[in-house]
Parts: sequence; C-alpha cells; structure tokens
Amino acid sequence: MGGPAALPNVHDGHLRITYEEMHVTIGKAAQRIKSEFDPDIMVAIGGGGFFPARVLRTFLKRVSGADGKRRNIPIQAIGLSLYEEVGEVDGAAGLAQEEKLGKEVIRTQWLDFSTLGNRPLVGRRILIVDEVDDSRTTLGYAVSELKKDIQAQFDKLPEDKKADFPPTKLAIFVVHNKLKEKRASIPDDVAYFAGDNIPDVWVDYPWEQEEYILSRLAYCILLHNEVAAKQKELGL
Amino acid sequence: MGGPAALPNVHDGHLRITYEEMHVTIGKAAQRIKSEFDPDIMVAIGGGGFFPARVLRTFLKRVSGADGKRRNIPIQAIGLSLYEEVGEVDGAAGLAQEEKLGKEVIRTQWLDFSTLGNRPLVGRRILIVDEVDDSRTTLGYAVSELKKDIQAQFDKLPEDKKADFPPTKLAIFVVHNKLKEKRASIPDDVAYFAGDNIPDVWVDYPWEQEEYILSRLAYCILLHNEVAAKQKELGL
Repeated sequence: MGGPAALPNVHDGHLRITYEEMHVTIGKAAQRIKSEFDPDIMVAIGGGGFFPARVLRTFLKRVSGADGKRRNIPIQAIGLSLYEEVGEVDGAAGLAQEEKLGKEVIRTQWLDFSTLGNRPLVGRRILIVDEVDDSRTTLGYAVSELKKDIQAQFDKLPEDKKADFPPTKLAIFVVHNKLKEKRASIPDDVAYFAGDNIPDVWVDYPWEQEEYILSRLAYCILLHNEVAAKQKELGL
Repeated sequence: MGGPAALPNVHDGHLRITYEEMHVTIGKAAQRIKSEFDPDIMVAIGGGGFFPARVLRTFLKRVSGADGKRRNIPIQAIGLSLYEEVGEVDGAAGLAQEEKLGKEVIRTQWLDFSTLGNRPLVGRRILIVDEVDDSRTTLGYAVSELKKDIQAQFDKLPEDKKADFPPTKLAIFVVHNKLKEKRASIPDDVAYFAGDNIPDVWVDYPWEQEEYILSRLAYCILLHNEVAAKQKELGL
C-alpha cells in the first residue's frame, strides 16, 4: 500500500463491482428470497460472504416477539478456503487428483454449536451466503457438511420429538454466479438464488481495492467507482 | 421494503457514512495498525464487524510462505449482541441493574477451537474488529472473554513449552469511536485503534439502508450517498 500504482485500465476485461451495485443487487434478490424461502438463520461463508450477509440481513428482517417489531435474523459465520488460496498446506502436493478434489476445501471456522445449542439447525430455514459461485467447490462442500450436521442432530433427537420439527430447509444465495462449468453440484432439495448471472471473467470486488494512487491523491476505491462507470458508458 | 418512504432529511442530525468513506477510513487506519501492531489474526464481532474486517484484511496482507507472496490473514468471527438489541431474552427483566450489567452481552457465536486447534491464540497478535465503539460494553466483554481463553490455553501448555511462545497481544480496531462516557474500560495492555473519533450522534451505516424510494425509483443506498454529500456541503 502507499506506493505509486498504475491507473486502472478500462480495457482490462475486469468486471468492476461497486459497493452500491452490490447493495442494490442484494436488495433486489432479497425480495425473491423473502417470498420464496424466508430464512430464519444465515450461514455466511467468510471472508467473501461477510458483506453480502450483513447487507442481506437488513432486507430480511422478520417480525418476532410480542411487540411485533421487525428484528434481524442471526448470522453464523464459517470460514472456508480453497487449498490454492491458502497456499501453505502441507501434504497436498503429493495427493492424486481424486484425493485432492475431496480435500481441497479447508475449514478455518465452523458453526459454534455451543451457542446454537438451544436453537439447533433441525427444523430451521438455513440460507448459505457467499459473494460468488465460481467453481461451486466451496458451496458444494458447505451444503454437504451442513447436511451431515443436520442429520446427526436429527438422529440424536428422542423418537417422540422428531415429529415436532418442520423439515429443515437449505438454500444458497450468491451475489454473482459465474456462467461456467462447475466442479460440484447442488442437490435438488437446496434452493439456489443468484443476484446476477455473470460471464466467466475476472471480478474486482470493492473490498479488495487496496492501493493509494499517488498521481490522483486518492484511494483506489474511489477510482474503482470511476472506472466502473466509464466501463458502463463504453459498454465494456 | 418496497413501500414509499420519506426522503432522508439533511437536517435530521444523523451522521451518514458511505461505503467508500468506510473503506478509506479503514485504509488509513490500516497503516497505523500495520506499523504499530501487525496482527496475525482478526476476530470480527458480527454483524457490524464483518465489513470492516473484510476490508481491513485487504490492507493487512502479510508475506508468508517460501514464495514471498503477500497473503490474507485469517478472520475468526464471533457474534455478540446486547440484550436490548435481541429483545427476546427471557429472565432479563427481573434482574437488578448490577446483575444486568454483567450479563447484558449475549454470545451468538464464539471462536471455533476445533479449527484453531493447531494455531492456538497463545503467542498470537489478535486484532478485535468492530464498526463502532458506542458504550464499549461489547468490546469490554470480548476482551475479557478472550483473555480468559488465552490464559486457559496457556495454562494447559507443558511447562517446557511455555517459553516457546512470544507474549500474546490483543488490540482493538473500531472504525468509529463515539466520544461519550463508556460503561466498560479497556485494559492498558490492549492497544486501541479508532479510524475516527465522532460525536455521540446517530450514525447511519450504509449496510442498514433498506428502503426503495418510489418517488425516485432508487434504492435508499443511492440517496444515502447523495444526502451524505449534501450534508458535507452544508457543513452539517
């Protein structure tokens, strides 16, 4: 940070998303999510899912409590990374491709069942949130691991309690779905919401803008918005 | 959402923060945090700390691994709410004030020690991140609980291992510190970074903007930026 940096090039083929565009895309998707799924808990995949989950929560408030007030729904955060992003994992280099496929997602944080204890996953409407569906690997992993946890919690219930819970529902929300071949699939019983379908190009998210552009005496985030506007103007 | 809403009033006394202002404030603070503390892990207090932690991570990348690449530092999320925000907690109404003070913070999620297992808190440089320091209650709670966990982890180490770890360091980063009387204090050994000190006024954060303003055919987030600019122009 702080060094001189090249001005962003409108012809670099990157898709630049501004904070306000993210917010509006999430707000529009929230209408569909609310009417078609109406989650009572979100599971945000960090770090990319943090911002979308926080914004989405604003749009998905639910009436709860005797006073009829609209309240935030809870967010649980999980941390998932792909091996290639972490880059410091021992032993992965020697694995055969099929082993790697099963192991390429690393958990850096999972749900905290000590605090979820009296509000378990069973019977809930759970929305998994991330910023982008690229290869679908991370989302596929999240769904399959959550399903295992839900089943394990359900199996532990006394037989006479099992009927007390409505069916547990899972859904996914991503702000952007890249139209490309996916490396994992989402089961049919998991609803899927995408804010926008986008081509398979490099996406510059606003929270990744780091540089201070000396020649403009401005942080890159401000030029990011300018360049994004210019690209729209030029139809790029 | 969706209904007609009053246009925001520039004279309502609210301090309106735009996404880009948050980003730049975080970027500037990051220079001080990097040079004075240089964290190797962040603990984001959700939901308000999610956005600041994700942006801050962009500015706090560290060189790691043999290839000398700059990599993201990990974020662990915790969920803390004040009783008054949750509003559906049984039994709090009957408590005496001094009992309430000790109990008014609710954990909705805590650190996941199953994934932190081989990278414990002991010996690390831990930065707690939130969007605003209002009454300081939540931050005070987070610091005191983290210190207990760190001490418990340290106590469990074999005697001959204890000297292998550098001292564990805690620091706090908030984007905004409200200048007001606080209800909790931060110990002297915990470094404190605030992006900005602000007066004790109502703050409108961008991610809370929900309405679609029919008369302008625009989501409130866009008017939020406009009104914020107008307030600056008028010196409000």
